[in-house]
Amino acid sequence: MLSKNQIKLIKSLSQKKNRQQLGLFTVEGIKGINEFLNSDFQLENLYTTKRIFDIVNHQVTEISEIELKKISTLKNPNTALAVFKTPKSISLKNEGLIIALDDVRDPGNLGTIIRLCDWYGVKDLVCSTNTVDCYNSKVVQATMGSLARVNVTYLDLEDYLESSKANIFGAFMDGENIYNSSLPSEGIVILGNEANGISEAISSKVERRITIPQFGKKQSTESLNVANATGIILSEFRRRTITEM
Amino acid sequence: MLSKNQIKLIKSLSQKKNRQQLGLFTVEGIKGINEFLNSDFQLENLYTTKRIFDIVNHQVTEISEIELKKISTLKNPNTALAVFKTPKSISLKNEGLIIALDDVRDPGNLGTIIRLCDWYGVKDLVCSTNTVDCYNSKVVQATMGSLARVNVTYLDLEDYLESSKANIFGAFMDGENIYNSSLPSEGIVILGNEANGISEAISSKVERRITIPQFGKKQSTESLNVANATGIILSEFRRRTITEM
Repeated sequence: MLSKNQIKLIKSLSQKKNRQQLGLFTVEGIKGINEFLNSDFQLENLYTTKRIFDIVNHQVTEISEIELKKISTLKNPNTALAVFKTPKSISLKNEGLIIALDDVRDPGNLGTIIRLCDWYGVKDLVCSTNTVDCYNSKVVQATMGSLARVNVTYLDLEDYLESSKANIFGAFMDGENIYNSSLPSEGIVILGNEANGISEAISSKVERRITIPQFGKKQSTESLNVANATGIILSEFRRRTITEM
Repeated sequence: MLSKNQIKLIKSLSQKKNRQQLGLFTVEGIKGINEFLNSDFQLENLYTTKRIFDIVNHQVTEISEIELKKISTLKNPNTALAVFKTPKSISLKNEGLIIALDDVRDPGNLGTIIRLCDWYGVKDLVCSTNTVDCYNSKVVQATMGSLARVNVTYLDLEDYLESSKANIFGAFMDGENIYNSSLPSEGIVILGNEANGISEAISSKVERRITIPQFGKKQSTESLNVANATGIILSEFRRRTITEM
């Protein structure tokens, strides 16, 4: 059984300011919840229509399908919704390959990029403060549980780049051909906003402008979607560690 | 001014059976419409709130924002909606690199894959008959105009592969490492359904199983999203034509 206050609290977590104030966010679906249960994230409460989770009793509330529908952000809620605590502070390791996002706005894109970071073993994803919140339920959903394994840090990107000693790469339409460039196994790779790319202030910190060349007829001025570009760039950086040893 | 019948016809195009029966589909937004106007696709009608298109008068209807809202499938309609004719039949060229989709269901994924084919100069995209319709408005929207430049053919994929003389590749979780494999500049690359991958019947036609290796901790059994996998695989095939000449 869910109380009115519980419903109100969970629904309030759809807003960023409430997530930040309460230090909580929601995860939906068995698979995603299990990924977070198997990570360093701390569970606050779990609401489920089936007793399928192997965790201590007082944190679990059995609810009806109708109740789940009330608290879910999904059209077709999937068995369970969990409330987890947002990590207090994540310490940036500042080593290996780091992806930096300058004002990425679409939750699906951020979620997909987190999933790609997980796949390609990128531990740190740094985001400008105006990048969409990674605890937004659409982002969490799109990560398919990968958010449990990638550290996402929001910071002043200009300051961060200014103080970093790493090689700084940026994805542009007019950079050096990524396939022919020498790429190190460490460094920061910046990807920009869906409509405007990397901002001028951040561009000025970039040491090497890289580009994914177009193979089509070049009739179009369109760029690749930022999540696809991230995947292809990560693939190129990681490939070098295998094929250029 | 829009008549009731016009509104009814346009709205009916949200259903695949009506699109097929009438041989029509819709494109929204100035950029996308211009891409189709500059292609071989034939315009049926254009409805716009601003006189910004350089085309013959009788095909253009000026409408109000309120009318546009009535016929649009978007939350925030963008200036214009055009009705184009679906091409009667597209002849498969059967040359170069061909992407084949086995039962891809998500409109956003298909749209993104069409955009990637355009970027990487893939002229033919072949789809199993149960793959989502490329004239679905969400697909058209996600292609960002690229659909005007990529031939999408729906066919019996098993028969097609059976009769093809090309090298047949398939993306699997357990194939050869794509980064170390020799990849030709021509061939067919199959990608499968979001949840189930490539079906058994289609798998049996695959000559070379390829995989994008995971660089993370391998804690997860999750695969990459099919559109991301397509982008990375296309990148690898095309890279070879540059760096292995």
